Amino acid sequence: MQFHLNGFRPGDPERREADDGQLALRRSDTLPKEVDVLIVGCGPAGLTLAAYLAGFPSITTRIIEQKSGPLLVGQADGIACRTMEMFHTFGFAERVMKEAYWVNETSFWKPGDDDPRNIVRSGRIQDVEDDLSEFPHVILNQARVHDFFLDVMANSPTRLQPDYSCRLADLRIDPSRERPVTAVIERDEEGKGKTETVEARYVVGCDGARSTVRKALGRELRGDSANRAWGVMDVLAITDFPDIRLKAAVHSAGEGNLLIIPREGGYMVRLYIELDKLNENERIASRNITSDHLVAAARRILHPYTLEVKEIAWWSVYEIGQRLCDKFDDVPQGDSRAPHVFITGDACHTHSPKAGQGMNVSMRDSFNLGWKLVSVLTGRCPPELLHTYSVERQTVARELIEFDREFARMFSAPPKKSADDDEGVDPREFQKYFVRQGRFTAGTIIQYYPSIISAKPDYQHLAKGQTVGMRFHSAPVIRLADAKPVHIAHTVKADARWRIFAFAGREEPADGSSAIARLCRYLETSPDSPVRRYTHRDGDIDSVIDVRAVFQQNHQDLAVGAMPSFLLPRKGKYDLVDYEKMFCPDLKSGRDIFEMRGISRDGCMVVVRPDQHVANILPLDAHSELAGFFEAFMLPA
Amino acid sequence: MQFHLNGFRPGDPERREADDGQLALRRSDTLPKEVDVLIVGCGPAGLTLAAYLAGFPSITTRIIEQKSGPLLVGQADGIACRTMEMFHTFGFAERVMKEAYWVNETSFWKPGDDDPRNIVRSGRIQDVEDDLSEFPHVILNQARVHDFFLDVMANSPTRLQPDYSCRLADLRIDPSRERPVTAVIERDEEGKGKTETVEARYVVGCDGARSTVRKALGRELRGDSANRAWGVMDVLAITDFPDIRLKAAVHSAGEGNLLIIPREGGYMVRLYIELDKLNENERIASRNITSDHLVAAARRILHPYTLEVKEIAWWSVYEIGQRLCDKFDDVPQGDSRAPHVFITGDACHTHSPKAGQGMNVSMRDSFNLGWKLVSVLTGRCPPELLHTYSVERQTVARELIEFDREFARMFSAPPKKSADDDEGVDPREFQKYFVRQGRFTAGTIIQYYPSIISAKPDYQHLAKGQTVGMRFHSAPVIRLADAKPVHIAHTVKADARWRIFAFAGREEPADGSSAIARLCRYLETSPDSPVRRYTHRDGDIDSVIDVRAVFQQNHQDLAVGAMPSFLLPRKGKYDLVDYEKMFCPDLKSGRDIFEMRGISRDGCMVVVRPDQHVANILPLDAHSELAGFFEAFMLPA
Repeated sequence: MQFHLNGFRPGDPERREADDGQLALRRSDTLPKEVDVLIVGCGPAGLTLAAYLAGFPSITTRIIEQKSGPLLVGQADGIACRTMEMFHTFGFAERVMKEAYWVNETSFWKPGDDDPRNIVRSGRIQDVEDDLSEFPHVILNQARVHDFFLDVMANSPTRLQPDYSCRLADLRIDPSRERPVTAVIERDEEGKGKTETVEARYVVGCDGARSTVRKALGRELRGDSANRAWGVMDVLAITDFPDIRLKAAVHSAGEGNLLIIPREGGYMVRLYIELDKLNENERIASRNITSDHLVAAARRILHPYTLEVKEIAWWSVYEIGQRLCDKFDDVPQGDSRAPHVFITGDACHTHSPKAGQGMNVSMRDSFNLGWKLVSVLTGRCPPELLHTYSVERQTVARELIEFDREFARMFSAPPKKSADDDEGVDPREFQKYFVRQGRFTAGTIIQYYPSIISAKPDYQHLAKGQTVGMRFHSAPVIRLADAKPVHIAHTVKADARWRIFAFAGREEPADGSSAIARLCRYLETSPDSPVRRYTHRDGDIDSVIDVRAVFQQNHQDLAVGAMPSFLLPRKGKYDLVDYEKMFCPDLKSGRDIFEMRGISRDGCMVVVRPDQHVANILPLDAHSELAGFFEAFMLPA
Repeated sequence: MQFHLNGFRPGDPERREADDGQLALRRSDTLPKEVDVLIVGCGPAGLTLAAYLAGFPSITTRIIEQKSGPLLVGQADGIACRTMEMFHTFGFAERVMKEAYWVNETSFWKPGDDDPRNIVRSGRIQDVEDDLSEFPHVILNQARVHDFFLDVMANSPTRLQPDYSCRLADLRIDPSRERPVTAVIERDEEGKGKTETVEARYVVGCDGARSTVRKALGRELRGDSANRAWGVMDVLAITDFPDIRLKAAVHSAGEGNLLIIPREGGYMVRLYIELDKLNENERIASRNITSDHLVAAARRILHPYTLEVKEIAWWSVYEIGQRLCDKFDDVPQGDSRAPHVFITGDACHTHSPKAGQGMNVSMRDSFNLGWKLVSVLTGRCPPELLHTYSVERQTVARELIEFDREFARMFSAPPKKSADDDEGVDPREFQKYFVRQGRFTAGTIIQYYPSIISAKPDYQHLAKGQTVGMRFHSAPVIRLADAKPVHIAHTVKADARWRIFAFAGREEPADGSSAIARLCRYLETSPDSPVRRYTHRDGDIDSVIDVRAVFQQNHQDLAVGAMPSFLLPRKGKYDLVDYEKMFCPDLKSGRDIFEMRGISRDGCMVVVRPDQHVANILPLDAHSELAGFFEAFMLPA
């Protein structure tokens, strides 16, 4: 955390100075007539995007929500490792770590061999493989995730807050206008309906599976017609089932399947029950199902263990299929004009709850879109950049649905009865699949394919553990100037900046002829330097592309003052030195980032997108290739 | 973090349910006429105590402060490891970790051998030895520490908040009354002076070196008459001094000494300059010193390095000696009546700023007193318990002053000029002393001597790494029921509860004849069991003494359901099971708590006070000794 750059300010450093212009716009109790971005829907996807954009005072953003206030209870709860990494860029991963349940191990239960009426444990595995992420897989009430994003917004320079009780009534697009999207919004406060019209440069539909925005685009979710119905309950209960504080997948012989997700706070637990697998009597239309049915089903599945439910904090029955939109923006297939309307999250893809992916993928849609909108609205990139949103995220959603379909099938299938039972699933096979797919579930395997913002992996061999297209995989390092143990990827914030991690070669970096020194000289002085080319002259040198160096030497063996001046940049109104650009391996702990991530001892550059994905890997001396990469999608400042 | 025990509650779990009675008392804009505890002074000591007491709705506490609002800037900044451990019990260690500067290494500078006019680095060491604490030594603006305590108070059931602009005018003690202390308070809001009279059971003076409360007791600070003057500045500056982001002790040949403390946020730095060591011209009465003098002195000391100060966020000159009160309460030496007035922090001991101890020791005074006041006011312990506050903390303060005097002498002495120079200090000797005294500075070596609440170390050999009288030294463990990696000492909260950590022997704990099973049976069923004896029948079984077990087996090898029922206690209005009482060593990481802390493989009990100090170590079968220990200072429920 860096602060006080432009003078000491008392109080909470996370509460940034308010922007006067944005505060003035807030004084009215209606929406501004003109905005840059209008977000529809205050779910995880909408709030992720709102929190992202709220950090930029030059962008006027509004987020509307049909409900009358923030969510308090229920809905999604699983937070994948990759999502925690994203939360860290917003600054609240620590709060989630503290409050959430940690999924450390998962157990599997099946019908007993001796008596199939009794479930027995068939396996127990570590939930997340070692070193997959520096963050755990956790479970936390979706409402609390909302709260954290709302806090980020409230502390941002724009002090953005949702406009509740606002329903999108109509959406019109006219690409020829400066603000091509006209939205008609009905505000229903205290029963008084009022209509407001907002002209926006961009509208983003984060309004769920029944998305009004999607319908206005004439797009539809396509996929499984046979939706599955699920029952879900958050309960306070007494049980002798021993794994009640572990994530547990329970397959009973004849009573259906149950997924147990322990919840934050140590007492509450969530039960997912697939309703299609219930007894004939319960397999009725889901609207007739009561929480009593769910409790009874859970009790039968858990036999011989008992379950005494004391309080149901929340419950729901829902039908959900694996569905997908063919495109996530308003541009017709084949048309090349830049998009103005986007859809994210459940508005363009839905998933069964079993793999715990829905909320995670939705938030990461917005994390992909956020920096692109900022880049275009601040003039750093041409509007064509926005095409990459639908291309990248539609592919991810499709791959996820394929995974999810298989996962749901295996989860729902009855236990295999014999070797030639084609319908059934061997619980051991399910467990194996679960392990193999751990990286998918964790969200760390998501990969963007080559495009203007993601290079072909020509130099992948220089950093084997940092796959081009996948997220930059963190590792522990020591910060040179203050010897602090930190995680290298934690230098990435939700601020729309690009990063270049320059891993130095073996040479002494203070030697002006070393590859790292030459790269720094190029970046600092060459007219072709992308850092110079794309940074506004009034901005800090790292305000568009933030360069960090990782040396191979022990931190005590390097002299801070002798390092390239580019790595000790002068910033802010006082021209103060930023001492946080240089890192060394944590050799004392034996966790050398060069070894851990397969970085060549000759060094290399790892170019990281604002959404943490590796965009390119280049040799340290590939100066012009680096310039060429950025030139493809950036505009000179 | 455990919550939802008595039903699901939406929102931030750290915001506890408000107590109606306390809210009603708050409605008036004057102080209540009768309170249980009146705290005078909103510094670190006062706020620590207020935050502690705020958690107890049956106790009416008020805290008054002469200033008109919370502190915004300046004053103390060093937070020792031990203090971080204490912060964790209040729930905000993570916030401090995130925001603070971490003191990872300390460097030492001395006059160069070739040219003494130029300083050169003489050494660089790790600041805190490995495994001294699970927390780092950090630096953070005292005002932020206040903020965190104020947040704890605001979220507590009593919603306690300070009464600002209130000055203690008079204090009278009459031990024969139910509320023996009468305080007259002048409230000065908007220039209107009003007087309020409050009758209190206890008054605690946390009102600094010029303490009104201390004066009312007729006590005085005694010690060095020759106070030293210090100049201190928080600056934003540009320098080529390479260790500007390390804690650095600089001894110049003829220009004096400087202590550099980098500050939170990455840019600000604090400079301590001992004024007695300045040139003749500056060695004037401190009131004539300006910040210009301090800057000029710092520049001369740092020669040949440059220092260009861009902003002075805060500066001060102060004289401070090593002073101490002979007793920290109102009871005359030799008298046996229970105390009603206490003094804490600077009100009873002052220190030079060099060892960074003042704020830390002050807060820990209150941490010692807090649980004792709660125990007496809730009827768990007789008022005589309160005698131990002055005995324990006066000893600590005295030992600290001895340490501090030596440290300050070595810091202030000129560098030794030759082998027979008796005045000077060899910088290498200073560095050695610094290393040796690291545990003192970290606060982890503080030890309370045998008393009714601290046993003689008869069984010290059973847990060699947990010294009786010192703080319980944490280590990583795996929580049995959910396989979560946690720190064993993080089960201790600022809640006035005692803890028994029962380290099991080698046997299978599910075996009813194992020592741990027998101990559990005793604690659960025996009429002599201290857990039964001191717990109110309406209270949860762990509400006075919280028992946690640590087994030797791998967590996957133990069956949760087969464990002693006492370790799966039923709690709250629903009789839910608390699954967080059992732990196993973290064998996978190789960090076995039994090895790390020298715990006998036969097991033992480590009895831990509410302030985290080890009160007793006993064999697992020492049931009656355990009962006898508690009987000495507790009252049956």
